Amino acid sequence: MNTELLTLAQAVERLLAADKILLLCHKNPDGDTVGSAAALLHALRAQGKTVGLACSDPIPPRYDHMQVTAFDGEFEPEYIVAIDVASLQLFGAGTVDWAQKSDLCIDHHGSHSRYSDALVLDDKAAACAEIIYELLLEMGAEITPLIADCLYTGIATDTGCFKFANVTPATHRIAAALMEHGCAYTKLNAHLFESKSRSQLAVERQLLKNMEFYYKGRCALTWLTLEDIEATGAKPVDLESTTGIARAIEGVKIGVTMRQQPSGSWKISVRAAEGVNASSVATAFGGGGHKGAAGCEVFGGLENAKQALLAEVARHLPSEDEPEGGEAD
Amino acid sequence: MNTELLTLAQAVERLLAADKILLLCHKNPDGDTVGSAAALLHALRAQGKTVGLACSDPIPPRYDHMQVTAFDGEFEPEYIVAIDVASLQLFGAGTVDWAQKSDLCIDHHGSHSRYSDALVLDDKAAACAEIIYELLLEMGAEITPLIADCLYTGIATDTGCFKFANVTPATHRIAAALMEHGCAYTKLNAHLFESKSRSQLAVERQLLKNMEFYYKGRCALTWLTLEDIEATGAKPVDLESTTGIARAIEGVKIGVTMRQQPSGSWKISVRAAEGVNASSVATAFGGGGHKGAAGCEVFGGLENAKQALLAEVARHLPSEDEPEGGEAD
Repeated sequence: MNTELLTLAQAVERLLAADKILLLCHKNPDGDTVGSAAALLHALRAQGKTVGLACSDPIPPRYDHMQVTAFDGEFEPEYIVAIDVASLQLFGAGTVDWAQKSDLCIDHHGSHSRYSDALVLDDKAAACAEIIYELLLEMGAEITPLIADCLYTGIATDTGCFKFANVTPATHRIAAALMEHGCAYTKLNAHLFESKSRSQLAVERQLLKNMEFYYKGRCALTWLTLEDIEATGAKPVDLESTTGIARAIEGVKIGVTMRQQPSGSWKISVRAAEGVNASSVATAFGGGGHKGAAGCEVFGGLENAKQALLAEVARHLPSEDEPEGGEAD
Repeated sequence: MNTELLTLAQAVERLLAADKILLLCHKNPDGDTVGSAAALLHALRAQGKTVGLACSDPIPPRYDHMQVTAFDGEFEPEYIVAIDVASLQLFGAGTVDWAQKSDLCIDHHGSHSRYSDALVLDDKAAACAEIIYELLLEMGAEITPLIADCLYTGIATDTGCFKFANVTPATHRIAAALMEHGCAYTKLNAHLFESKSRSQLAVERQLLKNMEFYYKGRCALTWLTLEDIEATGAKPVDLESTTGIARAIEGVKIGVTMRQQPSGSWKISVRAAEGVNASSVATAFGGGGHKGAAGCEVFGGLENAKQALLAEVARHLPSEDEPEGGEAD
């Protein structure tokens, strides 16, 4: 498809020319896809537009403060905009038919697959919400406290509250502006980052209990069996949020988290420190990902799967200053 | 004492008029007192000044990247500046004699006790490092990458990486500027916030294992016995950094962490959510603190101490929507 790259001004012009606008989020919606879409929805409604927001999964209750409800077909969309969605695979069954007719995408993923007629892309933006902020300024939209809350949620969640490597000076400056526009950042930070669910807590407790260290503490490995998962009452979102635990320990270069699937196989999350490549480990098992975070599937019993993973991990650990011992401690 | 309040320009004038300058940090040094003093030290040395940094405790290795070593009397101080120290009680035995002769304090604590001849105070600053940044601009100092690292460390550690309620728009804008001055924020964030020591991990594991919930999940209570502490190999800093765990759970209004002391008594940390007063609980046992965080000492065996604390907690929990059950679940 010949996807036309638009400036913010051109995108604003098209949005304002449209009337019945449907915004699409990606499946397993996170704070950025919901926050970006919600901010644009509230701003366009303030311009008198009819706007809906569709997602193939329910919007998690933790985003209730953004005051969006899912589109239920109450109008016939004339202009379809996908927000923070890099490829058609990321939509899910409930929205992919609309997504195939996307008039515009607004995204910050450099890997965007150009499935839409037009595209606003800024792969330097830490969050799609940064682009939406600039777009709303271009539109002359009033940044209400509610819109500021939505954009702050997108930026804060996509940057781990300004902690990840994707943060830029622009990220901080936009956060400052959103605070001045009245975003409830104290409440949002507490809500988004300081509040674990009881089942998340149970998952963490089990992961810490199972955790083992190998290769002089340079690899941490932990797991959840199906029984463990059932005992915690954890939902997928509780499990996803804990995959960083094994890596975030002093001296650990590669952290491996194993989760048993209903089929019995193991879903593996590999996280790596700077200078180590997580995707090399995952690729060896037919998976993939980024340098810092990757995933794959491994079959077999717990001990066999562990040994296979540890053997692969050993091949990708950097040479160390002290002599290699290889002991589990 | 008649403490003179100075503008930044006046403070710069006095600093540049002095030659042999001693900077003082508070005891139990944190990222802000060290980062602020280190930044000023490097900037003043670049102006040709002789500068030392003194602290009654060793500078923790986690701040090695700021490249400061403790003053060992290699010159006779002519001008003494206390950085981020609200009162003389906070110096410790090794520095209090110098502190009593402080020519200048630079601080962001509204409670500053005015023990110095002169004072630069901005209690809106989230970190003392914000004030030092403005002071260095006023001085026309070059913000080198090393100085930017020091200031970023101060700001990031005093704000929980931009998460706490003390963050202002200025905090974010200064962070943006420091990134442009070359601070290694990705490395610093990983170093300061994503790296738990093995003993911190062991402490967390034990706290999660012991954790109990009361009053329909509105109170979380956990503890470490002397045996627990010994088994983890934890140092005081490992213990301090974990006192927030009990509060940071969905629905928890008051989190209580009990640590057995060598004497057998319990050192209690109380953390409260918005709308609940932690210091009311601590005050009932002769302790004190702030609304959000307070502490006290409780005597007796584990069960007796728990029951005494829980009875007091019950008196300070807000009334709830659903009827009170009072069960431990």
